[in-house]
Amino acid sequence: MIFFYTPYSCSMAAHLALEQTGVDYEARLIDFTQNEQRSEAYLAINPKGRVPALQTEWGILTETPAILAFISQRFPEAKLAPIEDPFRFAKVQEFNSYLCSTVHVAHAHRLRGSRWADDPKAIESMQQKVAQNMTECFTLIEQQLLTGPYVMGADYSICDMYLFTICQWLERDGVDIRRFPKVEQLCQQMLENPVVARITALYQPAS
Amino acid sequence: MIFFYTPYSCSMAAHLALEQTGVDYEARLIDFTQNEQRSEAYLAINPKGRVPALQTEWGILTETPAILAFISQRFPEAKLAPIEDPFRFAKVQEFNSYLCSTVHVAHAHRLRGSRWADDPKAIESMQQKVAQNMTECFTLIEQQLLTGPYVMGADYSICDMYLFTICQWLERDGVDIRRFPKVEQLCQQMLENPVVARITALYQPAS
Ligand SMILES: N[C@@H](CCC(=O)N[C@@H](CS)C(=O)NCC(=O)O)C(=O)O
Ligand SMILES: N[C@@H](CCC(=O)N[C@@H](CS)C(=O)NCC(=O)O)C(=O)O
Repeated sequence: MIFFYTPYSCSMAAHLALEQTGVDYEARLIDFTQNEQRSEAYLAINPKGRVPALQTEWGILTETPAILAFISQRFPEAKLAPIEDPFRFAKVQEFNSYLCSTVHVAHAHRLRGSRWADDPKAIESMQQKVAQNMTECFTLIEQQLLTGPYVMGADYSICDMYLFTICQWLERDGVDIRRFPKVEQLCQQMLENPVVARITALYQPAS
Repeated sequence: MIFFYTPYSCSMAAHLALEQTGVDYEARLIDFTQNEQRSEAYLAINPKGRVPALQTEWGILTETPAILAFISQRFPEAKLAPIEDPFRFAKVQEFNSYLCSTVHVAHAHRLRGSRWADDPKAIESMQQKVAQNMTECFTLIEQQLLTGPYVMGADYSICDMYLFTICQWLERDGVDIRRFPKVEQLCQQMLENPVVARITALYQPAS
């Protein structure tokens, strides 16, 4: 398998899951500073021009929640999600779908506002609301969605990997993670996992 | 089961899937004109204040891709998705995740811009880009994602139900569906299904 990733991006979530399985794969860096995500070669892999993408023996997969669900089902012995229980598996999808469609999107309005408006003033106006929106999302996560100690309760899962990934953006989004003690605790716990330490080392933001 | 829905909203996707299974459920309308999605009673069901939500015997589920995946796995005899094949099931999630995180979000900038900016001028600026963004999304769907005749090829699936739902918004988004012949054909095909006809009758937009 080949995994296409970029530092400081959402690809960290699926990267954590892959590494956790212990499977052999190649990690290939897509260099955003060179706009490599829009190169012809990469668009042939993922016509959306985004990371992550996972090349498997059956074909290419994109979209974080889909790659996470696939890794969980393909490597059941890694126990990354409650795949044997349709309702609990759907709760995992629910959490990941919320991160993907609402929380990641709220964050993206800070650096990628030009996706949704052309006027520079509008883009600035979007940036000004990011801290407030991320705070609202994390308040919901802290108070309602995160069972504790992990998102799904006692068991570490792909939900934690995805949440941890988005937490890496909070400081620059203007949000203090210490306002969310359960979330902060979960992230600190994860940092003690050597798999997580290995992957976070690859994901340091450009200074 | 109780299904919470609103006309002219994304709840149509899961509504189509539920109805297609033939299972007994109650459909409960959440009246956006009365802001019922933010009522205390509904926030107790879904603290996000959004539709859809599905109350099951195990608890409540939200997020369209999660509800769709759950319905497919819970009612395998309805054959709504290739649930026995982890890669193909992940391709279903990939498509639905793209609709949820990118296409639905592109559309939402027309009527829900106040989620991402406070300045009325910024909100107007977002509205001006919706037709262009939806056109880009549907170009990708038409040319790359939709296998044909259905999204996943020969078999009708939850991907088609979700795509059909978003197609209902295109005209008001300023996009002519006739520019996307495979998508248009798929929608017309679906309209011949009595299940689809029953649900679309519930989803007429307020004039
Ligand atoms: N819905 C997709 C979003 C992927 C996405 O937006 N990735 C960002 C990095 S976090 C990207 O590749 N951006 C490159 C660009 O916009 O040019 C997912 O969850 O995988
Ligand atoms: N990611 C959610 C989004 C749900 C959503 O945004 N629903 C809209 C209707 S299409 C809604 O309930 N809006 C009510 C509001 O914003 O007040 C999903 O896919 O289910």
